[in-house]
Amino acid sequence: MGFWTLDNVQLAEFRPGIKSKVEIGNDLIMACMEIGPGQEDAGHEHDFDQCGLVLDGQMEMFIGQEQKKLGPGDAYFIPAGQRHGYKTLDQPAKVLDVSLKAPRS
Amino acid sequence: MGFWTLDNVQLAEFRPGIKSKVEIGNDLIMACMEIGPGQEDAGHEHDFDQCGLVLDGQMEMFIGQEQKKLGPGDAYFIPAGQRHGYKTLDQPAKVLDVSLKAPRS
Repeated sequence: MGFWTLDNVQLAEFRPGIKSKVEIGNDLIMACMEIGPGQEDAGHEHDFDQCGLVLDGQMEMFIGQEQKKLGPGDAYFIPAGQRHGYKTLDQPAKVLDVSLKAPRS
Repeated sequence: MGFWTLDNVQLAEFRPGIKSKVEIGNDLIMACMEIGPGQEDAGHEHDFDQCGLVLDGQMEMFIGQEQKKLGPGDAYFIPAGQRHGYKTLDQPAKVLDVSLKAPRS
């Protein structure tokens, strides 16, 4: 499907605490994710860029040495190889996230 | 820079009628674009995926045979090779757009 209306997109459980809807193309993965309260990714890295935008709620995110509390309208760009992670607070956060389907050789 | 606040991001003229701020990584190009009223891309295609989200304003977009008037919170995913184009109306439209930096071989 080419178009999503994010206010009423149907999300399915991706893993405990995270619901998502994903579009997978040749190159890109676009995911709308609703991350429940109190979820945390303490940090990881990968060999491809990732970016996105917070749509609703708030989350703390770090990219390398930078750390920010993100709310609606805050975008992020995670360069390939940079360690990054996030933490949601007492409310869910909804994001639109885009990453490469697979690392390029 | 890892984080952008899209409400007050500084945009520069990209070409007449379009202002933008762009982040270019190894793989992805993330662009915040403000497209002026009455702008049109009648259609083109490329060998990589492109996706994004309308942040403010409205625009008409087509992807292959699908056509939609998009407003804030409407996302799009343009599969590699699909013809697509857009038209802004009497107000500017602001989008966050992500595409591959260069086609993969």
